[in-house]
Amino acid sequence: VQPTRIAVTPGDGIGPEVVAESVRCLEVLRSKHGLALEWKRFPWPSHAWHEEHGESWPADALEQLQQYDAILLGALGDPGPVDDPGRYLLPDSISLAPLLDMRKNFDQWVCERPARLLPGARQYLADERAKDIDMLVIRENSEGEYVSQGGRLRKGTPDEVATQMEVFTRKATDRIIRYGFEQARRRAEQRAKEGNTRSFRTLDGSTRESQVCVITKRNALRYWGDMYTEVFEEIAEEYPDVATHHELVDAACMKFVQSPWAFDVVVASNLQGDILTDLAAVLSGGMGVAPSCNLNPTDPDMPSMFEPTHGSAPDIAGQGLADPTAMLFTTARMLDWLSRKDPTLASAAKELFDAVAADLAENAGTQRGTREIGDAICKRLGD
Amino acid sequence: VQPTRIAVTPGDGIGPEVVAESVRCLEVLRSKHGLALEWKRFPWPSHAWHEEHGESWPADALEQLQQYDAILLGALGDPGPVDDPGRYLLPDSISLAPLLDMRKNFDQWVCERPARLLPGARQYLADERAKDIDMLVIRENSEGEYVSQGGRLRKGTPDEVATQMEVFTRKATDRIIRYGFEQARRRAEQRAKEGNTRSFRTLDGSTRESQVCVITKRNALRYWGDMYTEVFEEIAEEYPDVATHHELVDAACMKFVQSPWAFDVVVASNLQGDILTDLAAVLSGGMGVAPSCNLNPTDPDMPSMFEPTHGSAPDIAGQGLADPTAMLFTTARMLDWLSRKDPTLASAAKELFDAVAADLAENAGTQRGTREIGDAICKRLGD
Ligand SMILES: CC(C)[C@H](C(=O)O)[C@@H](O)C(=O)O
Ligand SMILES: CC(C)[C@H](C(=O)O)[C@@H](O)C(=O)O
Repeated sequence: VQPTRIAVTPGDGIGPEVVAESVRCLEVLRSKHGLALEWKRFPWPSHAWHEEHGESWPADALEQLQQYDAILLGALGDPGPVDDPGRYLLPDSISLAPLLDMRKNFDQWVCERPARLLPGARQYLADERAKDIDMLVIRENSEGEYVSQGGRLRKGTPDEVATQMEVFTRKATDRIIRYGFEQARRRAEQRAKEGNTRSFRTLDGSTRESQVCVITKRNALRYWGDMYTEVFEEIAEEYPDVATHHELVDAACMKFVQSPWAFDVVVASNLQGDILTDLAAVLSGGMGVAPSCNLNPTDPDMPSMFEPTHGSAPDIAGQGLADPTAMLFTTARMLDWLSRKDPTLASAAKELFDAVAADLAENAGTQRGTREIGDAICKRLGD
Repeated sequence: VQPTRIAVTPGDGIGPEVVAESVRCLEVLRSKHGLALEWKRFPWPSHAWHEEHGESWPADALEQLQQYDAILLGALGDPGPVDDPGRYLLPDSISLAPLLDMRKNFDQWVCERPARLLPGARQYLADERAKDIDMLVIRENSEGEYVSQGGRLRKGTPDEVATQMEVFTRKATDRIIRYGFEQARRRAEQRAKEGNTRSFRTLDGSTRESQVCVITKRNALRYWGDMYTEVFEEIAEEYPDVATHHELVDAACMKFVQSPWAFDVVVASNLQGDILTDLAAVLSGGMGVAPSCNLNPTDPDMPSMFEPTHGSAPDIAGQGLADPTAMLFTTARMLDWLSRKDPTLASAAKELFDAVAADLAENAGTQRGTREIGDAICKRLGD
C-alpha cells in the first residue's frame, strides 16, 4: 500500500506542544494497528521562521505541502504580550497569511466545524437542553468576504475611503449548499443506524429527519443574499427528504444562544461562517475542544488541512499548560477524512475520538498539563 | 415652550399592539407632569399601506417625518406564515427599506443598544456573573457593509457573480469611535455618582474606570480593519482615562457568551454591530426587552428613531400576546434622548424606565397579555 502522508506544521505558541501529543497518539495507533501512515514535521509557517528568513515560509512551501495527503496544523500567530503595546498591534495579517493561502491554493472550499456538547465539556448555557446540541456548521471557505479585494483611497487623510469587496459566485454557492444537503443526509443515515432519529419541521408542517439551515443577511446585503436564497431553493428540490430553513445571520447568532439544539446542518458564507463557528465552538465547551477541518472534497490531489479552532495562546506557550484536547479531536477528524483513501484508518479515527471523549468525560474540572492529558489518552489507546 | 413632537409609526405585526401601550404610558406621564409632548400616528411604513398604495410609504414620507423631534417605530416586516412557502421567502427588502432609508436620510449614524441583565429578565448563560453584564454596544449606522453597492453579473446563470461592496470613510470611523469614548466617560461618571465603579486593565497593566473595545476583522478584512485600528489608536491618545481593547468579531462573539461582564463600551461596524447587538439583546434576556436607538447626535434638525430590537412577530400578531416591555424600554430611552432639548423629560424617562424594570422584576415567569402588562405599568406611573 502507498502510505498516507501527513504534513505536520506545529506553528507558533502552544502549537508545537499540542501537536506533540497528536504525534504521540498517531505513533501509538500506527504501531498498534500497523497503519500505513507517515508524517513529516515542518518548522514553518511560524514566527520563528519569519524572524530568521524574513518570511513566514519558504517560497516553495505550497508545492512541498501539496505532496501530502493532509496537513495537520497546530496554531498560527503571536500577537505578543498584551502588556507590550508595540507588539500588541502587530498585524497578524503576516502570521496568518499562510492559513488563508493554504485554504485558497488547495481550494479547501469547505470548512467543517461540528458542535456537540460532549460529557465533561464546559456548559456555558443555562438550559439543560444544551446537552442535546448536535450541529455541523459548514462554512464556505473559498471566496465571499475573504477575497481580499479593496484598498485605501487617500490613506491616512481625513478624506480616506477604505473599500472591501465581497465576491460570491454561483458555482461556489451551489457546491457549498449541495455539500450541506449531502451532510444532512449522511447525518440522518448515521442517526438512523444508531437508533437516534431527530425530527425537523418543514415548510408544509410535515417533518423530516434532517435539516439544512442557510444563513445570509439578505435584508441588507441583498445581491449575494438573493443569489444564495435562489440557489438554496433550487437545490432543496433535489433533497425532498431534508427540511430547509433560512436565518438571517443576526437572528442565527441569537438562536445559537437561545435554542442551539434546534439546528442540524448550518451553511454560511466565509465571514458569517467564521462568526457562527466561533459561537458553535463555545456551544461545544469552548476553544479547548473545537476542531476545524478545511476540506477539498473534490480534488484528490489537493491536501485538506486540519487545525484546532483555538489560537496560539502566547501567554501560556512553552509552559506545558495548553490543553491538547481540541488538537486531538482535530487529529481524529483528520484520520476519519483520510479513511476515504485508506479505509483502515476509519477505526483508528473512532478509537482516537472515543479515547479523547472518554478522557474529557472522566476528568471534567481537573487541572492537568499538556503532557499529562496526552499520557492519559495514549494509555487509553493501549500504549 | 415649543412642544416636543413625536412621529409614531406602529408598522406591522405586533408593532401596533406594543406601540399602543407606549402611547398610553406617554399619556399618563404627560398629564401627570404637564409635559410639553405631542405625537402623531402614521399608518406607514407598513404592509397594509403597501397593499393599498403599491409602496411602503408616501413619496414625501421622509419630509413629513423630518418635522418631528423623534420617531417611535413599532416593528416592520411581515415574512408571512412559516407554513406558506410562497410568502415565506418574500423579500423583506421591501418592508425593511424604510428602516434603512430613515437611518440614511436622517443620518442616524449611531445605533445604541445597551445590554444589562435586569432582575426578572431571562438569563441564558449558566454563569452567575451574567447578573453583572452592563455594556453598551455602539453600532456604526451610516455606511460600511450597508451601502447597498454591488450587483449580480450573469444573473441566474451558472457563471453568475454577485458582488457587494463595503465602503468605510475615515470621517464616519472617527465620529463613531469618538462617540464611543465619550459614552465610556459618561458611563464612568455615572457609575462614580452611584458609588459603583468598575475597573478595566489597560495595556501597561494599570487600570481605568471605563473601557472602549473596538471590533474589526482586520486579519481578514484588512483595508478597513487597518483604518479602524489606526483611528482607534489616534483617538485613544485623547482619552488617557479610558482603557482600550480590540477584539476580532469572531472572538468577540465568543467572549459575549463566555465573559460578557468584562465589556463596557463596544464599538462595531454596521454589520458586525448588527450581529453583536443581537447577541447583546440575548444577554439582556432576549428580544422581549431590548431597545434600539438610531441617533443623529450632531444635527438637531434630524429626528432620531427608536425601535425595539424585536421583529413584527406575525405569528402572534393581533392576539394581544406580544410583550410590550422592549417597546416601553425603547420609549424610556427616547424620552431620555429628547431631554437634551427639553430637560423636563429626563425625570419622565427615568420614571418610565423604573416602572418597566420594576414590573419586569416582579412578574418574572408569569404569562401576561400585552394590555395587562401595559395596565400594570400605567398603574405604577400613577394612572
Ligand atoms: C485567523 C483567521 C484569518 C481565521 C479566519 O477568519 O478564517 C480564523 O478566525 C478561523 O476561523 O480559522
Ligand atoms: C431589519 C434589518 C435590515 C436591520 C439591520 O440589519 O440593521 C435589523 O436587523 C436591525 O438590527 O435593526
